[in-house]
Amino acid sequence: MISVIELQNLINRAIAEKGIPETPKELYEPIRYILSLGGKRLRPVLTLMACDLFNGSILKALNSAVGLEVFHNFTLMHDDIMDKAPLRRGKPTVHTKWNEAIAILSGDVMLVEAYKLMMEVDDNILRQVLNVFNQTAVGVCEGQQLDMNFEQMDSATVAEYLEMIRLKTAVLVGGGMKIGALIGGAEEKYANLLYQFGENLGIAFQLQDDILDVYGDPEKFGKQVGGDILSNKKTFLLINALELAQGIDKEELVYWINAENPETEAKIKEVTAIYNRLGIRQLAETEINRHAEIALRSLEEITANEDKKQGLRSFAEELLIREN
Amino acid sequence: MISVIELQNLINRAIAEKGIPETPKELYEPIRYILSLGGKRLRPVLTLMACDLFNGSILKALNSAVGLEVFHNFTLMHDDIMDKAPLRRGKPTVHTKWNEAIAILSGDVMLVEAYKLMMEVDDNILRQVLNVFNQTAVGVCEGQQLDMNFEQMDSATVAEYLEMIRLKTAVLVGGGMKIGALIGGAEEKYANLLYQFGENLGIAFQLQDDILDVYGDPEKFGKQVGGDILSNKKTFLLINALELAQGIDKEELVYWINAENPETEAKIKEVTAIYNRLGIRQLAETEINRHAEIALRSLEEITANEDKKQGLRSFAEELLIREN
Repeated sequence: MISVIELQNLINRAIAEKGIPETPKELYEPIRYILSLGGKRLRPVLTLMACDLFNGSILKALNSAVGLEVFHNFTLMHDDIMDKAPLRRGKPTVHTKWNEAIAILSGDVMLVEAYKLMMEVDDNILRQVLNVFNQTAVGVCEGQQLDMNFEQMDSATVAEYLEMIRLKTAVLVGGGMKIGALIGGAEEKYANLLYQFGENLGIAFQLQDDILDVYGDPEKFGKQVGGDILSNKKTFLLINALELAQGIDKEELVYWINAENPETEAKIKEVTAIYNRLGIRQLAETEINRHAEIALRSLEEITANEDKKQGLRSFAEELLIREN
Repeated sequence: MISVIELQNLINRAIAEKGIPETPKELYEPIRYILSLGGKRLRPVLTLMACDLFNGSILKALNSAVGLEVFHNFTLMHDDIMDKAPLRRGKPTVHTKWNEAIAILSGDVMLVEAYKLMMEVDDNILRQVLNVFNQTAVGVCEGQQLDMNFEQMDSATVAEYLEMIRLKTAVLVGGGMKIGALIGGAEEKYANLLYQFGENLGIAFQLQDDILDVYGDPEKFGKQVGGDILSNKKTFLLINALELAQGIDKEELVYWINAENPETEAKIKEVTAIYNRLGIRQLAETEINRHAEIALRSLEEITANEDKKQGLRSFAEELLIREN
């Protein structure tokens, strides 16, 4: 079986060799730039694994997998403008390195490029693959809108949060795996089960992110631990804490949320202490396990090579015990 | 034969009946809004006429035609952000009525919707139609980038200008007509000729716009006559004038271009007078006629119903003698 690292290398080579036009350079340089910032290429890796699970040729799925990564990076380029983010993977975002107009237009052409790559599949599955891709793309846009609305809302429910991360993050993982399965020749039934696997893995992955932001090892996490707490980001942890806290815990939590220019160390320490008293980390882990179990059950129902199923299972577990 | 007005009505009805989702409302309201601002729907009308030319069912091309209009409006939504335009057809642009983030994301989802509509064609032409659409979409993005670069350049050549308007405006007309032809069952050869018809018509149409901006009847034009002169916009007229002017004409032209806070009436009057002395309007009309002739020759080479060819010819002539 091909290892995850080999798949990542394959994808990175395909991205590097993709012939991005030279001119107009303002349009195409930002595409080369954002694709060169790296990342784990998890989505296309999972697309290739999905194809391989049904004994499809990985090379036949490579262009669509790269298309998925191009799409993902298009969303990052546009999200960074909307979120006014200065950095992406420690480097200047496209709209700061160039300007907003270039980041908008370069992103637009990336979305078209993603479609072009996605279309490099056999005629008999072209419509099916594009239908999944369309649905995925709409979901991701809706998720980003919900995420922006979220930051404006006074309060949010756990259900609203889970729906937001499902759309913003998880449908792309699920959609990519379904596309990989279709290219691999899977029956619709199995492709849908793999969608479920991917979507639930995506939700669990995002929840794990929320936990790492508070409980991650500062040496390994790569970002500032406690960043979500400092910015009052409505994560799974904060939403649950606000729902569960009572009496003095509630008062203290609201105090820290409303504090102007709080002492950062103190805010992180005290809010984390409240989370601990309320057992919020365990709640999040329970939710992660719930989605991981749905994912694994979906995989179980698929008739395929046991070794390859085990490969997917191991990769999913690796993703959910990661430290960054 | 179906009249242009009937085709416009058909398209407007199809747009109105298109089930745009309700939520998240921040994402979908701007789409309903920009599509409701109207416009002549020239691109989808030409797509339907192209389909009809080969005796294809107009109704079979309707969704793709609407997809083309949705795509066109997506480009307007994003261009307006990049150009910081406050108004579109006399109404607030999406980024001024809502905000930039909403205009970016709403535009993104419109592009996906355009693909969904474009895909509503028979399986046997799906790939061909999407290839044309992809190429068109990339061209339009490149054209917008060239247009933005244009405004930053000290000088530009006529050839650069023509290539810019070809990409920004004309490929979409050509691409839409080729798609209509393919849906109508045209052979590739004829579909390509109709592409040439559309592209050259598009270039001529854009040049006509440049003339109208200077020589239009203020009562009929709808915008301020002389707007391009006031903003020193590098149109076909100005580029040619800068190339041809000598002596006192050249000095005067450069004076008006560099004048800070010029008296607007005087600037429009004097620059127009220079254009008149140099015969710039005639130059532009010659260029329009050149493209109109290529368009008509392409149409001539197509074997199709003579009445329908005449319908296209008349519509093209109407577009090129318009006053707004």
